[in-house]
Amino acid sequence: MTHDEQRLRRLEDIEEIRRLKAAYCAVADDDHNGEALTTLFVADGVWSASISGVFEGHDAMRGHFDAIRASGRIRSSSHMVMNPVIDVDGDTASGTWSFLMMYTGADGSRVRIVGFYRDTYVRVDGRWKFATLHAQVQDHEVRPAV
Amino acid sequence: MTHDEQRLRRLEDIEEIRRLKAAYCAVADDDHNGEALTTLFVADGVWSASISGVFEGHDAMRGHFDAIRASGRIRSSSHMVMNPVIDVDGDTASGTWSFLMMYTGADGSRVRIVGFYRDTYVRVDGRWKFATLHAQVQDHEVRPAV
Amino acid sequence: MTHDEQRLRRLEDIEEIRRLKAAYCAVADDDHNGEALTTLFVADGVWSASISGVFEGHDAMRGHFDAIRASGRIRSSSHMVMNPVIDVDGDTASGTWSFLMMYTGADGSRVRIVGFYRDTYVRVDGRWKFATLHAQVQDHEVRPAV
Repeated sequence: MTHDEQRLRRLEDIEEIRRLKAAYCAVADDDHNGEALTTLFVADGVWSASISGVFEGHDAMRGHFDAIRASGRIRSSSHMVMNPVIDVDGDTASGTWSFLMMYTGADGSRVRIVGFYRDTYVRVDGRWKFATLHAQVQDHEVRPAV
Repeated sequence: MTHDEQRLRRLEDIEEIRRLKAAYCAVADDDHNGEALTTLFVADGVWSASISGVFEGHDAMRGHFDAIRASGRIRSSSHMVMNPVIDVDGDTASGTWSFLMMYTGADGSRVRIVGFYRDTYVRVDGRWKFATLHAQVQDHEVRPAV
Repeated sequence: MTHDEQRLRRLEDIEEIRRLKAAYCAVADDDHNGEALTTLFVADGVWSASISGVFEGHDAMRGHFDAIRASGRIRSSSHMVMNPVIDVDGDTASGTWSFLMMYTGADGSRVRIVGFYRDTYVRVDGRWKFATLHAQVQDHEVRPAV
């Protein structure tokens, strides 16, 4: 690759990783679709969150999302990500994000969570996937239904 | 165009569409400026929202925004967009976004709306415009003034 | 530079300025780290906010952040920025952003601020820094601890 092509490739990689992160949010907001979640991670990928634990590999992370879905406690959710800082190094990359999650509970309660993501990514067969995703919760507010 | 030029063009297009969306938010937050709104849409463009209906063409969408402004019920608003996924295909494109809207009512009430945008865009005379914009509201919370 | 190289450079500049802004948010959320703040601004840079005043130069802005930190009144904060519109002109640039800030007070109160940033940037020794940062607050909500 020429130097210009490498620079172009870096910008494309950052854009693809932003899309991967948006796809993750969409999967979480699709009523925590566990099967779809696994398509975004490498087979030995790790999903973790400071408020729910560490889930290693597709089976574990699918089970975690499926359990949230099965609980029926979330009526709708919106995962919003901001402030991306993405560093690409060949076929691996890392990223930090701020996030805001808004949940509406089945009982009408509202939950607002803010925090940070620390992720790593890997390019597999030309497509970026999550190697690890970690959600660090900073504040968690629950407002009961009125 | 060379292949590299096409790749560069795609990234530029995504950036211009992001700016178009930011311009839309600024117009909405400029006290729902109906005249400015029309400059962002093609003549037969369609603005729609799950909570307010479908407005086809410049006259209809201008009228809708002007009516919100004339009502005086919004003291200030902030439209914030996140999680863009923008697909460009020549001179047309589509995009999905998450959004968060915060309104302060004239009576001091606070409104928080979360949802998704589904847009289509078209390049006209070298400039991207909205063909369609649809806001799908997922949760709508009103907190009375204290 | 060839025309393509100029276009590539512009996209890279926009991305670097986005990272600079994310770094600013991280510094503010790192318990208002005044020393780290100064590394993001040119020596005669200006930090200002509609709710707290104008602080010119490294000493003044460091003092302002250090005073917030020393007050101990913020338990944690999350600065989130959206809707960037960044215009690059050689080695200077300007940017507008929407922001959402969520604070949790030491007393458990929650503060939510929305507004806009108006910034200018300058490239120094190949690295973008803030020349000026201005935060215009539009709404400021405080909810006491329950």
